[in-house]
Amino acid sequence: MADYRPPIDDMRFALREVAALEQLATLDGFAEADPQLIDQVLEEAGKLASEVLAPLNHPGDRTGAVYENGVVRTPEGFKEAYHTYVDAGWNTLPFDPDYGGQGLPWVVAGAIQEMWNAANMSFALCPLLNQGAVELLTAHGSAEHKETYLPRMITGEWTGTMNLTEPQAGSDVGAVRTRAVKNGDHYLIQGQKIYITYGEHDFTDNIVHLVLARTPEAPEGTRGISLFVVPKFLVNEDGSLGPKNDLRCVSIEHKLGIHASPTCVMAYGDSGGAVGYLIGDENQGMKQMFTMMNNARLAVGIQGVGIAERAYQHARTYAFERVQSRDVAEPAGNAVPIVRHPDVRRMLLTMKAQIEAARGLSYYALAGLDRANAAGDEKARQQQLVDTVELLTPVVKAWATDVGVEVASLGVQVHGGMGFIEETGAAQYLRDARIAPIYEGTNGIQALDLVNRKVIRHRGFPARSFAATVRREVEALEAQPGADFADLRGELLAGAEALEATTDWLVETWAADPRKTAAASTPYLRLLGILGGGWALARQANAAARDLAAEDGAAANGAGRFLEAKIKTARFYADNVLPQASAATAAVIRGAATTLDLDDAEF
Amino acid sequence: MADYRPPIDDMRFALREVAALEQLATLDGFAEADPQLIDQVLEEAGKLASEVLAPLNHPGDRTGAVYENGVVRTPEGFKEAYHTYVDAGWNTLPFDPDYGGQGLPWVVAGAIQEMWNAANMSFALCPLLNQGAVELLTAHGSAEHKETYLPRMITGEWTGTMNLTEPQAGSDVGAVRTRAVKNGDHYLIQGQKIYITYGEHDFTDNIVHLVLARTPEAPEGTRGISLFVVPKFLVNEDGSLGPKNDLRCVSIEHKLGIHASPTCVMAYGDSGGAVGYLIGDENQGMKQMFTMMNNARLAVGIQGVGIAERAYQHARTYAFERVQSRDVAEPAGNAVPIVRHPDVRRMLLTMKAQIEAARGLSYYALAGLDRANAAGDEKARQQQLVDTVELLTPVVKAWATDVGVEVASLGVQVHGGMGFIEETGAAQYLRDARIAPIYEGTNGIQALDLVNRKVIRHRGFPARSFAATVRREVEALEAQPGADFADLRGELLAGAEALEATTDWLVETWAADPRKTAAASTPYLRLLGILGGGWALARQANAAARDLAAEDGAAANGAGRFLEAKIKTARFYADNVLPQASAATAAVIRGAATTLDLDDAEF
Repeated sequence: MADYRPPIDDMRFALREVAALEQLATLDGFAEADPQLIDQVLEEAGKLASEVLAPLNHPGDRTGAVYENGVVRTPEGFKEAYHTYVDAGWNTLPFDPDYGGQGLPWVVAGAIQEMWNAANMSFALCPLLNQGAVELLTAHGSAEHKETYLPRMITGEWTGTMNLTEPQAGSDVGAVRTRAVKNGDHYLIQGQKIYITYGEHDFTDNIVHLVLARTPEAPEGTRGISLFVVPKFLVNEDGSLGPKNDLRCVSIEHKLGIHASPTCVMAYGDSGGAVGYLIGDENQGMKQMFTMMNNARLAVGIQGVGIAERAYQHARTYAFERVQSRDVAEPAGNAVPIVRHPDVRRMLLTMKAQIEAARGLSYYALAGLDRANAAGDEKARQQQLVDTVELLTPVVKAWATDVGVEVASLGVQVHGGMGFIEETGAAQYLRDARIAPIYEGTNGIQALDLVNRKVIRHRGFPARSFAATVRREVEALEAQPGADFADLRGELLAGAEALEATTDWLVETWAADPRKTAAASTPYLRLLGILGGGWALARQANAAARDLAAEDGAAANGAGRFLEAKIKTARFYADNVLPQASAATAAVIRGAATTLDLDDAEF
Repeated sequence: MADYRPPIDDMRFALREVAALEQLATLDGFAEADPQLIDQVLEEAGKLASEVLAPLNHPGDRTGAVYENGVVRTPEGFKEAYHTYVDAGWNTLPFDPDYGGQGLPWVVAGAIQEMWNAANMSFALCPLLNQGAVELLTAHGSAEHKETYLPRMITGEWTGTMNLTEPQAGSDVGAVRTRAVKNGDHYLIQGQKIYITYGEHDFTDNIVHLVLARTPEAPEGTRGISLFVVPKFLVNEDGSLGPKNDLRCVSIEHKLGIHASPTCVMAYGDSGGAVGYLIGDENQGMKQMFTMMNNARLAVGIQGVGIAERAYQHARTYAFERVQSRDVAEPAGNAVPIVRHPDVRRMLLTMKAQIEAARGLSYYALAGLDRANAAGDEKARQQQLVDTVELLTPVVKAWATDVGVEVASLGVQVHGGMGFIEETGAAQYLRDARIAPIYEGTNGIQALDLVNRKVIRHRGFPARSFAATVRREVEALEAQPGADFADLRGELLAGAEALEATTDWLVETWAADPRKTAAASTPYLRLLGILGGGWALARQANAAARDLAAEDGAAANGAGRFLEAKIKTARFYADNVLPQASAATAAVIRGAATTLDLDDAEF
């Protein structure tokens, strides 16, 4: 099994040039985020990821989580790894210092999450779900909730879960039927939840379930959903564990991938009702869920980047080791490592370029979240949120997870026949990656969110503002001497124009025909993703050209090579990926009509 | 598990309009291929596929083939299904009537193979490999070989296998090390072969292995490869089975998909040497292999179409049954089946359009093979081969199998969370589909074959001739009243221009820089695939418009609906898929240089 080597150089460069980490560190609350400290944190996290988590990934896939009589056992080594992770304080990074968190920026936490996911996506899901629960309790929990649960969820001594889905309530969360009946100072919860990630496991003594349910008099749909804390074991006043709550894991799913991550069917209230504590007021559950969605969705985008990076490294190692056939330019020579074959290089570059594009765009969005959190006034906060975070969150979630699947599939292909054999490990990345476009809101839901809530609702301004950001980078590239950026500039401009034209069309079309704009949503998101990734690469290429010019011939050393590679990678993306952005205009504008043309009986 | 309903209407239409079956039936040797008879054959095959093979597909995936002490057991029901298939004569369809075949055109056999693969790809692999062995023996075997083996391989009483790959000899078949030493009237074979599909199984009493090996004095590389018949059981002069040959299955692979199809490691000559009979002369093995490659590669392309069709039907059924969320145009209404959501329609149409495009192009290439076989003179035969069959074979193999993976992945996505659960069945199609871009020459090898042997070697003429074919269809569409084909014409023309420009560039660039043309090979193949599929759809849309005009308002009945859908599907493809063809120009011409730009140390 190939090792995992955290791409810290690339992370650091993207943090500096795309997320502008140095500037971020000057903002309120981020004094800890000075780049040198962050470097150390990245290095240390990289060690845990590569030395502890990565070696468990493939064995964990083969064994899978095992269910027996309500008990879930994670694969060998997972529990110990979790405690190593918790004991070193890794779980606390981005959380509120008042409850034991370290208050690091989300963009730094995101870079580190990429490592956990690259090393072992099944493992990383446990902290990821816990993170959502912590955020919810931080934002909406009562003082008592916070005191009881937050410190131990922030350290990782307990884990949190998110319980939304029911068989009839998937994308339509408003269809939830789980009931909550008031009973003194708490509620009694009854119902079944599915797809509960780490709903049961053997890592910790307690598990804190956040459960969406409906009170008897609640209005229909999303306006009648309330959110409850439902701990596996009730907590006594002194903080010790009390009796087991009336809830259990009924079974775990047999899935395509992420085998080591238990996906649970949870039954609440089989014996009368699970004790649940209302968070905030009744019927505020959906609104409360939205507070964690930006972050959770960005985190899933980061999963796409992480699994893609792992697949790339695995394929790269194989391509340098596997000797097969002669160089096309030296047909009389000896057989060469397959990385010498141009088509294999093309596959590896397609992987590398898209990973770095998606990493850059994800960091940009995460840093926007940090900037919003640190903003001095509400207007500045709103502008960061609307123009950057909210616009790009569905894009990062959907596009980066699509990239994850595409890159993992290319990784299989680089391996040839070996890629199809499970022992090789390349196939696992594809199987694992395939969940990310589905959960935390399918990519189709992301596209609708983008078009309806982030574009049309704001009359297109955030998207046009992003197009202007792209245009500014094109101008900056023009001023850059020493490298030929003509193709990159041309493709970025064409992409920006396509974004503007399709945005205008969405805004004009929506009121008269919301089915048409819905039909256009996925191609529009794809356009914005490809363009946004291209912008992130261009920004890095621009910075690399600047650094190279400053260092004068530094290309001979390692740092210079990295900078040269940045420029070449951006140019490769300009020729091989960016043309799809402007080509998407037809799919958005004309394609929407043809999509709706086919009658039901004609499928 | 969703049923499989063979898409016979669509097959029939593509056979008539793209493969021109009626004209084919007038050619020498195809008197049997009259469209009415073919209709019956398709209907009967469809019954076997849907009633016998399809129900075994998912259970077969769960059980998988099992290996124990050299013996391979296929999943429950597979052996009985194989005998039902053989007893009804299905194995004989395209083969030489002199040895018990029915001599039907390959294009008809291809349509039927699509059904076997859609119903049960793991099952269908056994006849597919046998087909390659039959073709080889038919073309190159001695009279004695033919008499001994062909009749029983054609009925399916025995099966054949292809033994090419060794651990160090994958894409580079010339690196084969298996040895063959002459020993009287036969050779003794010693060596290990991997990835041998159905190398051992429980369907039949005997298995006829065709094995590539090297004689002691053979020249290096592909010029020193010889081909041998190595039966599992030697055959006595009276046709009865003699002693077991010195060969065995050592193990079977644990794979991502096609679990019911045993992929064997075969050991030859552990006890001194397996008896093998030379086919033709020594050192002719590679040339002999090429005789079956066109056909085998087209058959793998057909697998891509088949598995895509199955995934589409599964997703379509789910989309009509699963109720979730309200219509975007009626937010106050009730929840609707998800097929009402425009983004789900877009996914289904993306599946449907690409399937029909790939089906059409595959049939066109297969019919070209039939026309070449029936050609009266060598010149006409060569023209069919060079302009159509050889040009399009790598395109159909690679592009249709890529479509297979993309469509199967979309099928998972349509199912949402259910798609990731193995019991749903959608994930199996993705796992099964993923092998097709790898085996029978990886898609990268196909692209090199296309660019080097089919385009550059013929100075681009076949590709330009295909561009002219596209241009003729554009003109024909212009003459067609009653439907708006403007977008389709525009995109086809842009695609034809892109094909011409990139073809010219390949021909001009190759001699000076063969690494560059190699780097451009996959984007070029993709361009030709997308354009070729668009052409096949345009041809059908054109015919549909003609039929609709003739029937005058027939759209109200079922046949009319089908014709309307054909036109709409072609237009959807024009807006949503075809723009990628002309956008590929940048990847071919500029992208080749940037691909080669990155140094080894920069990956």
